[in-house]
Amino acid sequence: MMQDKTRKACLKRLSLIEGQVRGLARMIEDNRYCIDVVTQIAAVQAALKRTEQEILRDHVGHCVEHAISSGDPEQAREKIAELVGVLTRGQR
Amino acid sequence: MMQDKTRKACLKRLSLIEGQVRGLARMIEDNRYCIDVVTQIAAVQAALKRTEQEILRDHVGHCVEHAISSGDPEQAREKIAELVGVLTRGQR
Amino acid sequence: MMQDKTRKACLKRLSLIEGQVRGLARMIEDNRYCIDVVTQIAAVQAALKRTEQEILRDHVGHCVEHAISSGDPEQAREKIAELVGVLTRGQR
Amino acid sequence: MMQDKTRKACLKRLSLIEGQVRGLARMIEDNRYCIDVVTQIAAVQAALKRTEQEILRDHVGHCVEHAISSGDPEQAREKIAELVGVLTRGQR
Repeated sequence: MMQDKTRKACLKRLSLIEGQVRGLARMIEDNRYCIDVVTQIAAVQAALKRTEQEILRDHVGHCVEHAISSGDPEQAREKIAELVGVLTRGQR
Repeated sequence: MMQDKTRKACLKRLSLIEGQVRGLARMIEDNRYCIDVVTQIAAVQAALKRTEQEILRDHVGHCVEHAISSGDPEQAREKIAELVGVLTRGQR
Repeated sequence: MMQDKTRKACLKRLSLIEGQVRGLARMIEDNRYCIDVVTQIAAVQAALKRTEQEILRDHVGHCVEHAISSGDPEQAREKIAELVGVLTRGQR
Repeated sequence: MMQDKTRKACLKRLSLIEGQVRGLARMIEDNRYCIDVVTQIAAVQAALKRTEQEILRDHVGHCVEHAISSGDPEQAREKIAELVGVLTRGQR
């Protein structure tokens, strides 16, 4: 489970991202120049990436860490396989 | 300027993406498993990518095309430099 | 340490990649069309990526696995931090 | 066709890359640590990327530029479609 501090930070980030997505719709309604819209999409992508990294950092620091500390190798193996699966997804 | 058909399609996509971002916040509030949240973030990233591609396709087919048909090489040069700049941004 | 089977497979891949790199130089010497050269560079990049994935699969299956089975949490932690560092490198 | 200066620079880069690939094979033969091999693969990938960028810069500055200056919109259109195809390849 996610730590309180991480959860709050992620909710704040997502609330900003929601606003950015609404801003994108407004840009399109206002006939803003395509390249400016695409540049702003890149900003939203970067904000989502940072949110993902924050969640994964928390996950490694707590869920994976807990599996290791548990002393149950099967649990640790599972968590690592899952983590590698997520981190290499973009490469498939 | 974006074609009507593209504008409508993009606004629809962005409305769905906004819903997905709110869904992400709910997942975090509901203490859903980190890896599931990260998987859903990847789905939002993919949806944004498709929106970006739709806008760029329209841009090449209309704005860049217009610059070429205008017969003014300076205009075409500018559009191409701008396009290459956007398409190679992730690589810098 | 890498398993024998992986080592042999990787050496074979690298030998093919070396040949591809020499082929690229020949393409340039022969004044081949830029876009064809760039397409061939992408093929070499993909071959290197597959080599990297083969090494990482072996690493997770053996080095990381060994750290987990050792029952020493400090070792496992170290291996995981290292692995996450490598897998998220492209994202920084 | 590639400019002389670019051709020489690319051939030099490729000769260094060929040496790096041979170095990778030696690392594996010498049983070097997996993570060090993977780090070195990333260095080769980066060197190939820079070579690709150098070729594409030359291509835009000369082949695409020539198509625009020719005043034949069909030629310019073709070059741009080809360029967009190459630059968005990684995204498909």
